[in-house]
Amino acid sequence: MNKVQHKIAVISGKGGVGKTVVTVNLAMAFAKHGIFGRVGILDADIHGPCVPKMLGLKGQNLRVGPPGIFPAIGPLGMKVVSMDFLLPSQESPVIWRGPLKMAAIRQFLSDIVWGELDLLLIDLPPGTGDEPLSVMQLLPEMDGVIIVTIPSEVSQDVVKKAVTFARQLDVDVIGVIENMSGFVCPNCGTRVDIFKVGGGEKMSKELGVSFLGRIPIDPSICEDSDRGLPFIVGHPNSLGTESFTGIVEKIRGFLNQGSRCLSISREKEVN
Amino acid sequence: MNKVQHKIAVISGKGGVGKTVVTVNLAMAFAKHGIFGRVGILDADIHGPCVPKMLGLKGQNLRVGPPGIFPAIGPLGMKVVSMDFLLPSQESPVIWRGPLKMAAIRQFLSDIVWGELDLLLIDLPPGTGDEPLSVMQLLPEMDGVIIVTIPSEVSQDVVKKAVTFARQLDVDVIGVIENMSGFVCPNCGTRVDIFKVGGGEKMSKELGVSFLGRIPIDPSICEDSDRGLPFIVGHPNSLGTESFTGIVEKIRGFLNQGSRCLSISREKEVN
Repeated sequence: MNKVQHKIAVISGKGGVGKTVVTVNLAMAFAKHGIFGRVGILDADIHGPCVPKMLGLKGQNLRVGPPGIFPAIGPLGMKVVSMDFLLPSQESPVIWRGPLKMAAIRQFLSDIVWGELDLLLIDLPPGTGDEPLSVMQLLPEMDGVIIVTIPSEVSQDVVKKAVTFARQLDVDVIGVIENMSGFVCPNCGTRVDIFKVGGGEKMSKELGVSFLGRIPIDPSICEDSDRGLPFIVGHPNSLGTESFTGIVEKIRGFLNQGSRCLSISREKEVN
Repeated sequence: MNKVQHKIAVISGKGGVGKTVVTVNLAMAFAKHGIFGRVGILDADIHGPCVPKMLGLKGQNLRVGPPGIFPAIGPLGMKVVSMDFLLPSQESPVIWRGPLKMAAIRQFLSDIVWGELDLLLIDLPPGTGDEPLSVMQLLPEMDGVIIVTIPSEVSQDVVKKAVTFARQLDVDVIGVIENMSGFVCPNCGTRVDIFKVGGGEKMSKELGVSFLGRIPIDPSICEDSDRGLPFIVGHPNSLGTESFTGIVEKIRGFLNQGSRCLSISREKEVN
């Protein structure tokens, strides 16, 4: 883990707010403007791992070599580790209690040959229980957490708990992303706020944390995720991709306050 | 628990598929056509309890009396127990590992004075870890589980694990509900399948379990949930309410195969 420059966990408190979609697309956006093979994703959702499916890596396995276990390699050289690679079939549930899950996450962090990475994003399952707690305790040197919410009050209420959770564990909150923020009918252009809009920004202000941006509802996000194509690759000119790009800039800004690694990668690409 | 005629757990595998919305509205639909005060909800989501908010019970407390702890009372006499009633503030996270969560759930089941109930719905958090496992082991005489999914393949993949989970624990699968199934623009009537459509039914066939019905996307569901009004009460003449009613009929059919309790409640109401 000491060759991994930056580590960021993506958390939500509430499930189904699109945390994995956000993780995968942020990772791809970083990789697109970085060095090949220097971004990784640890899918720490033991019960419902979705990262491989969304990156088109279903059916791959982790390769084992003398130095340890190697991550699967996705688009743009993305290094991916997920429980999904270890399951015998799609239908197999992982019926584990906390201590086993902590052991699995510890192995994912220590026994995997991640190599040199500029950034590792850790996709955490919802809640403030075993898995998030394990990751926070096993990676005390984490840069911070990104919190994903949808605009609804119900989601905000749960996500506030995630902010308190991070603070109690003394981890920086990089900022809040509001996903599924408004929907525009592709036929008539009418805007329908299916899960309301603006709740994430309001919550950020209330809690005194940065607001990173909004990602609108777009049926292509679901379609792309289902066929294993990250949305920002499948729809580079969409409003959603624009949002992701803006959010990545803000995260870079946060990381560069403390280090110059990612800005160096950036310069190399620009030159 | 022996005065509770029927016990059904609502599970999903994946978070954010609207499991709590489904639980609350199914409970209300049962209560509407049953005897006052004979339906209960146990919110077994320790980290992100949302049932009280959706029933307008925020800020209530559980009352303690000589026989034990009494549930909060919601609309139509709904008996509700949730971790949320025990937290000092909205922002307080429950940073607990598995064993503590199991202890809390055991107390919710054994120390609460539920009284005589026709039906207890148990809203489980996503995944196949500590909480679902605890509930299944603590309530071996459960009637069965209802599985909620959204139509996307990513959700189906995770939900299949929930079906296997129930089967491995020898619990009946009552059926699958497809939530967030298609969206119709309120302005022009164009149908947009934001999370696709039909995936839940397809999955049910593949796995050989009953399909209970589809609930369309409706912004009112989010609005009603946020203001603490169950959707089927706030919008009794909507397509969504029609779906919930149809689903409840199918569940009644399942329960009546094994007992006559709910059909009796039904007759009383009709006369």
